[in-house]
Amino acid sequence: MKSHRKELWFEVPSRRAFLNITSQVEQALAESGVTEGLCLVNAMHITASVFVNDDEPGLHQDYDHWLERLAPHEPINQYRHNLTGEDNGDAHLKRQVMGRGVVVAITDGRLDFGPWEQIFYGEFDGRRRKRVLVKIIGE
Amino acid sequence: MKSHRKELWFEVPSRRAFLNITSQVEQALAESGVTEGLCLVNAMHITASVFVNDDEPGLHQDYDHWLERLAPHEPINQYRHNLTGEDNGDAHLKRQVMGRGVVVAITDGRLDFGPWEQIFYGEFDGRRRKRVLVKIIGE
Amino acid sequence: MKSHRKELWFEVPSRRAFLNITSQVEQALAESGVTEGLCLVNAMHITASVFVNDDEPGLHQDYDHWLERLAPHEPINQYRHNLTGEDNGDAHLKRQVMGRGVVVAITDGRLDFGPWEQIFYGEFDGRRRKRVLVKIIGE
Repeated sequence: MKSHRKELWFEVPSRRAFLNITSQVEQALAESGVTEGLCLVNAMHITASVFVNDDEPGLHQDYDHWLERLAPHEPINQYRHNLTGEDNGDAHLKRQVMGRGVVVAITDGRLDFGPWEQIFYGEFDGRRRKRVLVKIIGE
Repeated sequence: MKSHRKELWFEVPSRRAFLNITSQVEQALAESGVTEGLCLVNAMHITASVFVNDDEPGLHQDYDHWLERLAPHEPINQYRHNLTGEDNGDAHLKRQVMGRGVVVAITDGRLDFGPWEQIFYGEFDGRRRKRVLVKIIGE
Repeated sequence: MKSHRKELWFEVPSRRAFLNITSQVEQALAESGVTEGLCLVNAMHITASVFVNDDEPGLHQDYDHWLERLAPHEPINQYRHNLTGEDNGDAHLKRQVMGRGVVVAITDGRLDFGPWEQIFYGEFDGRRRKRVLVKIIGE
């Protein structure tokens, strides 16, 4: 069994954003030499997500508005977590809706995707350096 | 390490439905010859889900009503994604709540489930042929 | 390839609670002898979750209030599932928001976590014995 580990670093200049990280995960897969296996991609921070969906800017705006409706950033004092001095209580909730990470199949040395699947980093508390973990196992 | 890949195809006649696909995943497992490992089952389309829950029709109605409350299909023009000509903006949101897929343990050649766990395909934009991927790795 | 399986049992005295189970998963990992691989941790019951987030009591109160807003326990009769005689319709919905389980990378014999990542059992229909599955594969 082979395994490969890589960290991807991001510093998003805004509080929230969605970044297409598919090509960076494909690069990690190429480095691994794995042709059959599984690829785990997860946020290493608890106010961010990694998920699979469509690379369509209108959809990303829809996600942002919808998550703000489900778990609004303001008022800050609606979240007990923010009594710790943080202002990111909403980000911990938004991250649960979008998920911590994804597991993607590897077949014939490629990410085994349907036609529109792309991997995104979802940032909900940006403006600092944060990491995504790629862990690949297989043969 | 062994690996096995199988696609399951579905054409749901309605916009939304939940299908129990457990026996089809068990069939793929039997074909794989894997007795210890992991089984990834994921929608290959971004307006559908694969998830584990209970095979109880009332619960599935509850899910449908609840998802419609969280992310209503209409009015269509509430979603920027639908400016592309699609009418499935809501389906991309519903899919995030229910998840892209599941990873199930394989033990002694069987899906290692609790007493009520069953695998479902959740369709949120049906009436066309769509796929689920089963990828099994192990020994 | 090595594999290891362990069940963790819990009996939460209240309807809902969040339990930090990180050290129990680390114990299972130590027993496995695996140093590179993947660790699946999932609820074996369909009214409970396993997820990764922060060990901060205020945040856990925020999760509980938020989930009650998204899928209230009462009135019981708002859920068709409860026509079966159950009163846990809400728990099946809450569990989907928080997720069935997580896959965690194993690197150098340890759970490969960011600085604040901890694993939680989320109980939404407690007051009885329920199980979490830990399945580890790797080398």
